[in-house]
Amino acid sequence: MAVTVVITASGVPMSNANMRDLWCVVMAGGAGTRFWPASTEAKPKQLLTLVGDRSLLQLSVDRARALVPAERVLVITNAALADACRAQLPELPDGNVIAEPVRRDTAAAVALAIVVVEARGGAGACVAILTADHLIAPVTTFAAAVRAAVAATQARPHAIVTFGVVPSYPATGYGYLEVDDAVGDDARPVRRFVEKPDLATATGYVQSGRFLWNSGMFVFAAAAMARALEAHLPGHLPALRPAVGARGQVDDSALVAAFAELKKISIDKGVMEQHDDCALRAARFGWSDVGSFPALADHLPKDAHGNAFRGRPRVLDARGNVLWAEDADEEIAVIGLSDVVVVRAGKRTLVVPRARAEDVKKLVEG
Amino acid sequence: MAVTVVITASGVPMSNANMRDLWCVVMAGGAGTRFWPASTEAKPKQLLTLVGDRSLLQLSVDRARALVPAERVLVITNAALADACRAQLPELPDGNVIAEPVRRDTAAAVALAIVVVEARGGAGACVAILTADHLIAPVTTFAAAVRAAVAATQARPHAIVTFGVVPSYPATGYGYLEVDDAVGDDARPVRRFVEKPDLATATGYVQSGRFLWNSGMFVFAAAAMARALEAHLPGHLPALRPAVGARGQVDDSALVAAFAELKKISIDKGVMEQHDDCALRAARFGWSDVGSFPALADHLPKDAHGNAFRGRPRVLDARGNVLWAEDADEEIAVIGLSDVVVVRAGKRTLVVPRARAEDVKKLVEG
Repeated sequence: MAVTVVITASGVPMSNANMRDLWCVVMAGGAGTRFWPASTEAKPKQLLTLVGDRSLLQLSVDRARALVPAERVLVITNAALADACRAQLPELPDGNVIAEPVRRDTAAAVALAIVVVEARGGAGACVAILTADHLIAPVTTFAAAVRAAVAATQARPHAIVTFGVVPSYPATGYGYLEVDDAVGDDARPVRRFVEKPDLATATGYVQSGRFLWNSGMFVFAAAAMARALEAHLPGHLPALRPAVGARGQVDDSALVAAFAELKKISIDKGVMEQHDDCALRAARFGWSDVGSFPALADHLPKDAHGNAFRGRPRVLDARGNVLWAEDADEEIAVIGLSDVVVVRAGKRTLVVPRARAEDVKKLVEG
Repeated sequence: MAVTVVITASGVPMSNANMRDLWCVVMAGGAGTRFWPASTEAKPKQLLTLVGDRSLLQLSVDRARALVPAERVLVITNAALADACRAQLPELPDGNVIAEPVRRDTAAAVALAIVVVEARGGAGACVAILTADHLIAPVTTFAAAVRAAVAATQARPHAIVTFGVVPSYPATGYGYLEVDDAVGDDARPVRRFVEKPDLATATGYVQSGRFLWNSGMFVFAAAAMARALEAHLPGHLPALRPAVGARGQVDDSALVAAFAELKKISIDKGVMEQHDDCALRAARFGWSDVGSFPALADHLPKDAHGNAFRGRPRVLDARGNVLWAEDADEEIAVIGLSDVVVVRAGKRTLVVPRARAEDVKKLVEG
């Protein structure tokens, strides 16, 4: 993969004019079991209000709206989740929540976004691909980072700018981005995209200082991504264009036919790894993929004994527990137990030691 | 206390005629925290459906109705619980659920029952005082035991017959009844009523073979109890009679005035310990006061790993847990934990090791 350095000065004041053509696309089609029983097929992680009183999806759209008006926020989800997404996002025009008929991975979602933005936004549009299931804060720092990335694409129209997160531990659950040199504030060329490594490899990555977590967020000119798709996944745009009208409206039944033709591949593998101008910006904002209830503990309020909670905790001789209730009015009482996770959601309750939280997968899928 | 032997042959066939004058009085005014969060002030233990699909109160009334028609089943509860009791017992006439305006312990409840039965039942009435918060089975054995006790009172009109439970362990949570001799099938004179003993004392009781648990259930002729009350608690009946009409209807506002005059004392202390003709029958029916969720485990279905449950359990590497849901459609999942109690009720959840279940009291009252 050829690489090119894209330098953008961090903290450069951006005029609002830079954002006039920006579209924010929130990828909200994910599934998963790690938050079971709070998450279900009908209510995956991005729809959960894990902290505070807004779901991860709502928080993601809130961040997008710090950058652009609601009309320029698109949510790409799937047919099973579209109604739930619309219900959570009354501030968005209904047509801005777009439902994929089947899952075809992230390249399909990005390509669909490009076709819609081309129709609605015109030639100069710029796109920020954002995730729906991460915790990111503060909003102002995040918004400044996106603005700086947009500026980078204006300076270098073919660049695809990614956000890398400086790893705090050798995570084996994330993809990594390799850069040439120790990480500074400016954008660096991406040398390599790597998939989830094993622990030894991840440890080496972290020690090297040249690897960052792939946050899954990208900024690019729509025209740049269209060209990259034409070069590396030439079937995608031609298949999708007939399903989107002249004003950018999506024809759901035409979309079924279009998606049937699409190769199932991620945008990382399908485009980014082949693209000759990928740039990385180290994220200065706080980022967490909150992959599990134990990981969520860092983002919840805690009592004096380190019990993290959402809802009303009531504890006696109990330390380091994670007590999470979907309904924040619910009370979870724990006596004489430490380092367990208790999850309450609907008609389901889960009790598991923090160290075994990953085994929820076995329970749900086994 | 003077004692008299009342002999009744066990298994004597009783004609229905014996039961023609029987009234069953279910004492349903209790309170308690050991089943928190399932039990609350508004919904104490007797109103809970701890097993199966009938509450302990409903099961108690079911047993009474195996003996007498609904018209001759009285439930004595308190004002705060009367509506809930009536809602659970649509088969009883509303006037058969009688609400004490304030708690004045069991002597007041028995005296109130006597006054009502005198008015409704006439001179020959016989009364079985039954508890509302124990598990008793099978119904046929229980009913036969009550019939035998009724026969005993017909043979010996002054007798108050109690049911003693052969202790299976040195319980410190129950009162005991001392008899003269090892326990057989027939009625024995009660030598002594003793309150909850310490463990050493209880151990001695169990080893002696002369002590039985006080089940809190009694059978007597109404006239016998009336005379005993006149002798030992002479204020009770005169205070209560003005609150009950000629057809046995209770005047709730007159009852407020009547109860204000009553001494707060148990029937055991106030009457039985003074009465000169108390007889004990060893209960042949299964009896449990199910004093806690761990104790309830013996009465719940269990999976292959000894997890007792009400509701839908879902476990992985989990043994000996007690998983109880008020709503039997609810799912409780446990991974990697053993010997814990998980209780789900309304907006509350409790997780506690079985061995610390008693500490719920500290949590609720502290």
